[in-house]
Amino acid sequence: MNKDFISKLITEIKRKRSHVCVGLDPDFNRLPPALKLKAQNEYGYNRRAIAQCILRFNQEIIDAVKDIAVCIKPQAAMYEEYGHWGVKALEETISYCHHRGLLTILDAKRGDIGSTAQAYARGYIGKINFWEDKKKKVFNADAMTINPYLGFDSIEPFLNQATAEGKGLFVLVKTSNPGSKDLQDLKLASGEMIYERVAQLVAQWSTDLTKNHNYQLLGAVIGATYPEAAKKLRKMMPHSYFLVPGFGAQGATAQDLVSFFNADGLGALINASRSVIFAYEQHETKQVGVAAKEAALEMRDQINDVLKNQDLLAWEKGE
Amino acid sequence: MNKDFISKLITEIKRKRSHVCVGLDPDFNRLPPALKLKAQNEYGYNRRAIAQCILRFNQEIIDAVKDIAVCIKPQAAMYEEYGHWGVKALEETISYCHHRGLLTILDAKRGDIGSTAQAYARGYIGKINFWEDKKKKVFNADAMTINPYLGFDSIEPFLNQATAEGKGLFVLVKTSNPGSKDLQDLKLASGEMIYERVAQLVAQWSTDLTKNHNYQLLGAVIGATYPEAAKKLRKMMPHSYFLVPGFGAQGATAQDLVSFFNADGLGALINASRSVIFAYEQHETKQVGVAAKEAALEMRDQINDVLKNQDLLAWEKGE
Repeated sequence: MNKDFISKLITEIKRKRSHVCVGLDPDFNRLPPALKLKAQNEYGYNRRAIAQCILRFNQEIIDAVKDIAVCIKPQAAMYEEYGHWGVKALEETISYCHHRGLLTILDAKRGDIGSTAQAYARGYIGKINFWEDKKKKVFNADAMTINPYLGFDSIEPFLNQATAEGKGLFVLVKTSNPGSKDLQDLKLASGEMIYERVAQLVAQWSTDLTKNHNYQLLGAVIGATYPEAAKKLRKMMPHSYFLVPGFGAQGATAQDLVSFFNADGLGALINASRSVIFAYEQHETKQVGVAAKEAALEMRDQINDVLKNQDLLAWEKGE
Repeated sequence: MNKDFISKLITEIKRKRSHVCVGLDPDFNRLPPALKLKAQNEYGYNRRAIAQCILRFNQEIIDAVKDIAVCIKPQAAMYEEYGHWGVKALEETISYCHHRGLLTILDAKRGDIGSTAQAYARGYIGKINFWEDKKKKVFNADAMTINPYLGFDSIEPFLNQATAEGKGLFVLVKTSNPGSKDLQDLKLASGEMIYERVAQLVAQWSTDLTKNHNYQLLGAVIGATYPEAAKKLRKMMPHSYFLVPGFGAQGATAQDLVSFFNADGLGALINASRSVIFAYEQHETKQVGVAAKEAALEMRDQINDVLKNQDLLAWEKGE
C-alpha cells in the first residue's frame, strides 16, 4: 500500500528541514509583462494565452522553490476564473509539481451535499467513474481544503476518497481573514465559539490514527493571523495537521507561528503565496525564480530560527 | 441600464406561470447508454467524449423544459469532476441556456477570502481582467450560490460584481441535507440557531432594495426539506429570494413549499435536479426530453395547485 499524504509530508519536512508551503495564486494582472507579451505573441489576446502565461510562471516558481518548499498549494479560484483554459493550467500545474517531486494541496474550499461532494472528491483527489467499471484520476491533487458549513455528510465523501487513495484533507476551522469573526467567532449556547466547535467536530470526524505517525487524515485550516486561537486549537486537535495561511502578505510573523506546532516540532504547514510568488516585483533583479527562492529561503529560516529557540526542530528529535 | 437578475426572474415567473428551476447535475454514470456510445465512437474513451456527452444531454433537457423552467441551475461539481473538458461543457451549457432565453444559476457554493473571492466573482458572474484595461466575461452565469462560513469580506466581492453586472447571489443558509444539523442547527448564546444568525446577516449585508420590485440582490438557499425553518426564515428575510433545493429526489413535497413563499406569491424558486433530468430512467419511452418535460410540467402544476389553494398565484395579483 502507498504511504498516505501525512506520512509523505512528514518525510519531506524532515528531509528538506522546512515547514514551507508555497501558494500558487497567479493573478494574471501581476504576472511579468515580458511573460504576457510572449504568450500573447504566440496565441493572441485570448484565454489560452493567459493560461499558458500562468503555467510558465508557475513552472518558474516551482523550479525555484522545489528544494525549499515541502508542498505547493494552488488556489483554485485563480485558475477557474479563466474558465476551462485556466483549469487546464491547473491540471498541468499539479502534474508539473509531481514531475518535480512536490506534494500538492488544492485550495478549493469545497462543501456540498453528499452526491455532489462525491463528485468533487472523485475529481480532485480520487478517481472518476469512466466507461463501464473503469476509474481514472483527473486532477490528482495530494490533498485539498474543504468547508464544514454543510456538516458531516458533506465531509464523508471526501474522507472516503482520501482514505482509499492515501490523500489528505484540511477543513476550514478559523480562517485568516478579518471577516472570519462574523460567523466563526460567534459564541454558542454551550460556551465555546463556532470555530472551536468545528475543531471538536474535526477531531470527532476523524478518529482513525494511522500507524506510521501521530497524525490523522483530517487536518484543519487555521489562519496564521490568530496565534491565540491556535494555542487552544492545538490542544483540541492534537492529532490534526494544521495548514496555516496568512504568513507574509496577510501580516503574520514567524514568532506568531510557535503556537501552531506540537511538541514533536510538527503539526503545522506554513503557507505563503503572494509574498513569495510576487517577490520579483520588489527584487532588484526582477527575476521571478531568483526572488521567489530568496523569499522562500528567508521564510524557511525565520520559521526554523523561532522553532530552534523553543527546541522544536523536528529533525533533531528522535523517531 | 440592464435589468437586474431578480427583475428578469420575476418577469419570467409571471410570463411562464412557473416557479420551477431545473438543476443540471449530469452524473456521467446515469447518462443514456446510446449517448455514451455515440460520443465514444466519435472521440474515443476520453474526457472529451464525456464532456460532449454531458453537453448533448443538457441540450436535450434544456430544449425540453425551456417553456416550463424559469431558470437552469448547473451544479459545478458535476462538470469540474471531469477537469477542463468538463468545465468547457459547463461554459457551453450556460451559453446554450442563454441562446434558449433561459436564466442560469451556477451552483458553485464558493466561499473564500477577499482577493480569492474576487477571482471567483470575476470569473463566474462578472468580468475578468484581460490585457491592459480590457475586461471580459467568462462563465457569465446570471447568478451563483455562495457559502457564508468566511464572513462578510468573503461575500462583499460577489456583491460588488453582482451589483455592477446585474447578477444574483444566493447565500447558503439552511441546506437540504440531513448533515445540515451538525453546524447550522447549533444554538448560539444569543438564543437563535446558527442558520438563523446567517439569515440575519444576509438581511443586514444587503439592505439595497431595488426600485422595480420588493426583493434584494442577496438571496438565500433554504432546503425544501425544512418547511418549519422556512416559516421563520421567510419573516427574517422578507426581501430575499429563496432558492429551494430538495424537491423530488430529496423527498420534499409541493405542500411543504407554501411556507417558502411571500404573500405576493413570489420569493421562492423551487429546484429539482435528478427527479427531472433522470426521469427518463423510469419513463416508458426512455426518451430524456419527453420524460424531463413531463416531470417538469408535473412539478410546475403541483406547486401551482398548492399555491392556488392558498391564493398565492403571483400572476393573478396586481403589480
